[in-house]
Amino acid sequence: MITVRKIAEAVDGHLFGDPDSVIYGVCELKQGKKGFISFIRAPQYHQYFVNSEATAVIVNESFTMETGSKTIIRVKNPVLAFAKVLEMFDTKPVIVPLFHKTATISTNANIDAQCFIGPNAVIEDGVTIGKGTNICAGSFIGANTLIGVNVTIHPNVTVYHNCSIGDNVTIDSGTVIGADGFGWITENKKHYKIPQIGKVIIKENVWIGSNCNIDRGTFMDTIIGNNCKFDGHIHIAHNVVIGDGCLFAAQVGIAGTTKIGNYVTLAGQVGVVDHITIGDNSVIASKSAVMQSVNPGSFYSGIPARPHNERKRQDVVIRNLPDIAKRLRLFERKFEDWLKERD
Amino acid sequence: MITVRKIAEAVDGHLFGDPDSVIYGVCELKQGKKGFISFIRAPQYHQYFVNSEATAVIVNESFTMETGSKTIIRVKNPVLAFAKVLEMFDTKPVIVPLFHKTATISTNANIDAQCFIGPNAVIEDGVTIGKGTNICAGSFIGANTLIGVNVTIHPNVTVYHNCSIGDNVTIDSGTVIGADGFGWITENKKHYKIPQIGKVIIKENVWIGSNCNIDRGTFMDTIIGNNCKFDGHIHIAHNVVIGDGCLFAAQVGIAGTTKIGNYVTLAGQVGVVDHITIGDNSVIASKSAVMQSVNPGSFYSGIPARPHNERKRQDVVIRNLPDIAKRLRLFERKFEDWLKERD
Amino acid sequence: MITVRKIAEAVDGHLFGDPDSVIYGVCELKQGKKGFISFIRAPQYHQYFVNSEATAVIVNESFTMETGSKTIIRVKNPVLAFAKVLEMFDTKPVIVPLFHKTATISTNANIDAQCFIGPNAVIEDGVTIGKGTNICAGSFIGANTLIGVNVTIHPNVTVYHNCSIGDNVTIDSGTVIGADGFGWITENKKHYKIPQIGKVIIKENVWIGSNCNIDRGTFMDTIIGNNCKFDGHIHIAHNVVIGDGCLFAAQVGIAGTTKIGNYVTLAGQVGVVDHITIGDNSVIASKSAVMQSVNPGSFYSGIPARPHNERKRQDVVIRNLPDIAKRLRLFERKFEDWLKERD
Repeated sequence: MITVRKIAEAVDGHLFGDPDSVIYGVCELKQGKKGFISFIRAPQYHQYFVNSEATAVIVNESFTMETGSKTIIRVKNPVLAFAKVLEMFDTKPVIVPLFHKTATISTNANIDAQCFIGPNAVIEDGVTIGKGTNICAGSFIGANTLIGVNVTIHPNVTVYHNCSIGDNVTIDSGTVIGADGFGWITENKKHYKIPQIGKVIIKENVWIGSNCNIDRGTFMDTIIGNNCKFDGHIHIAHNVVIGDGCLFAAQVGIAGTTKIGNYVTLAGQVGVVDHITIGDNSVIASKSAVMQSVNPGSFYSGIPARPHNERKRQDVVIRNLPDIAKRLRLFERKFEDWLKERD
Repeated sequence: MITVRKIAEAVDGHLFGDPDSVIYGVCELKQGKKGFISFIRAPQYHQYFVNSEATAVIVNESFTMETGSKTIIRVKNPVLAFAKVLEMFDTKPVIVPLFHKTATISTNANIDAQCFIGPNAVIEDGVTIGKGTNICAGSFIGANTLIGVNVTIHPNVTVYHNCSIGDNVTIDSGTVIGADGFGWITENKKHYKIPQIGKVIIKENVWIGSNCNIDRGTFMDTIIGNNCKFDGHIHIAHNVVIGDGCLFAAQVGIAGTTKIGNYVTLAGQVGVVDHITIGDNSVIASKSAVMQSVNPGSFYSGIPARPHNERKRQDVVIRNLPDIAKRLRLFERKFEDWLKERD
Repeated sequence: MITVRKIAEAVDGHLFGDPDSVIYGVCELKQGKKGFISFIRAPQYHQYFVNSEATAVIVNESFTMETGSKTIIRVKNPVLAFAKVLEMFDTKPVIVPLFHKTATISTNANIDAQCFIGPNAVIEDGVTIGKGTNICAGSFIGANTLIGVNVTIHPNVTVYHNCSIGDNVTIDSGTVIGADGFGWITENKKHYKIPQIGKVIIKENVWIGSNCNIDRGTFMDTIIGNNCKFDGHIHIAHNVVIGDGCLFAAQVGIAGTTKIGNYVTLAGQVGVVDHITIGDNSVIASKSAVMQSVNPGSFYSGIPARPHNERKRQDVVIRNLPDIAKRLRLFERKFEDWLKERD
């Protein structure tokens, strides 16, 4: 439990009401609970303020309602402030440095002493791991891979050999980094493997969700830029190069050698074909299939993906298609009748 | 090997023919084998009965053919009966209670003695596990997670901290329960993490296939209702609430805070966007993208998903589109010609 | 480092230039580097030859440019030759036979001495493993499964009981073989499990990427033919039978009991419904949904999938739809006006 005063200080907000109210946790505004704190993201939710049972509410500067018995904390960005509050109430277990006795660690690995190497983790020859990094239970780090400082690799992750993972990266469970890209050359109905000898390079502050695949390059590298955030079940093929700050939602797939710019947003289940480019700051709507390169700043949707406004217009017409077909049929008939009648 | 009499008893059926026939296993009707038992799901398969080599066949009450030398077992629901027969011939290994010596089990965990904790399984502090539960090889159960009775967690599953898994749940390999939801707030091109401090709550009799992700809630919980059955590669985002008895086929993805009613069927590769509701008993056809809330009892399909009948009509017209475009062109020309001619 | 002479010998090519040039690695042609070797896949890349800094270039028989100071190696198939060169420069760790002390190996398993059983691998009762096979760290092989010779199962793979994996198969991390298929029979809103007692049979020379699922059959088997190559995140449901030499890109899903012929190519994110057949040598474009059986030699695309040429024609018309709708509207009006005027 924390006083509202402490919370206001932490989020750098202006407090109105009783600073000594005690807060036990967070709640939704509508399903507010006594002793809990909530927030208002946008003016359309102001209506739920009066009847909420929440003891304290974080609001933005446009909020002007009577606060009644509630305590409010006024901030610039309530979502950002609330994120800090969530952190204060997070009960996730703290990981302390330890090399677990069941871990299999190569004597040729170079691991900072301030690391956690969990139960049954495997660290192969030539691996380097920086300070404050956690390699959790059952994770595998292949030979000669470099891992920076303050990295967390959750349980049951697999990182193949020769990869590079930057500082402050988080990788969720089940993810596979550095498996061979899908490279085959077919001659006379026989598929010959193209060895994949490039790396995966993940830069700094990247978050990769659970059960993702990021394949190693053929001979150039697969690169994930700084500050990228990936949801789960994402597939990144060989030689893909992704810029900084991209946000990819779940089940996105990007085919080989495609280049994604900076701050690109791909919504859920988007597919992107191979050997194309998506320009900086583009947004692709969910379930789209990007079949051709996309200019910077585009908003595309559909299969194949096209400018979203064009796609929406089409969609309206497609809904009316049965009607259009019928009108054409009737019109043709009318004209024919008219012609006949006229004769 | 089992006698037909025993099988008839197990499925509560009426036996016609030799009750002492010995059955060695199950077979398809068309590729029937002597000494094996098959079944007839629906009248259109009756035609394969006569030539089948199967020794015994489970049929329903509408079956009236001459049985010849075959033994038949008449039941109300042949598929349900055959499911029981499959169980009788299942050769999957039996798991016996044991705490494997290579498992890493916190001394603060509370595990019923009648459990199987497999090789290299990791059970963290404060975990509770009920009677008859199997935590198979390499699986990880995070701190303070509660697991009910008769649960089977297959090898290499990861369950994060503070989750709750009800009685009689099965989770297949590679699945990840309770990783952080995909929550970011972007300000000045910087993505700030929104801590995910809610839980995943999986109620009773749920089946979750392999390599699924079920993310923990932001501060409310992600909830999977009783008797839900999920195929593999399914992605359930944070704060999603799913009712009872839902069936989701492989590669389905549900985005954040969406609410799914009871007995909803989602076919393969369906995507559902965030913050919407799918009403009870709805069915969504494969590969659809549900972009708006759906009323109870709906049957939707397509991208974006729309009522299936409407979608089918559209689809017919879309197939005829090149023809419609051509007819319009010809018609316009014809009219122009006619006008000219007339002048 | 390797001399160009050695490379020319290995790829069975004709060398023009200095055979004693020393090569340190491979490079792209455009971003060529001194001391590195590149290749030219097709005539349209000949233009980059002159300015490339590469020391040596592998070309095909149609290449007729002045070579200048560069060394060239002329071969029939430059991609195939370059694949051999990549192998020469591959630095992946060599795996040597060893039963790691942390592995849990049943005394009833039958494992050739020339195998690698990695840290924390688990081999259950009745498993047979052939010579030269690697079961890497954390992988689980269920009871009575048969694994051939020269198989590599990368870390954190799960193979359930009673499966069969042929010679020279590779399975990447996170993949799950032999989990139960998704079989349920619903009666009075209760879902009864249909036991899945069939196997998964993977024939020879198959490659399966990371985080794939291949479910076991209900009572017939799920079968993957010889020389199939699967990318990651692929879902193969129960009873699916796949012929020889198929290539499936990432995130493909195939529903139950479907039959895929030989040499079928499925591009990324393709879905195939249950109980249909895709004929030999067919190609399905990315993101398609195959809803009906497909004849051999077909090239299909779209949702639902249709012959690609038909689909392309439709797509052009769909793009023009808003225009077509407008033209029809104007035309109807014009005719009405004309009729009125005429009266």
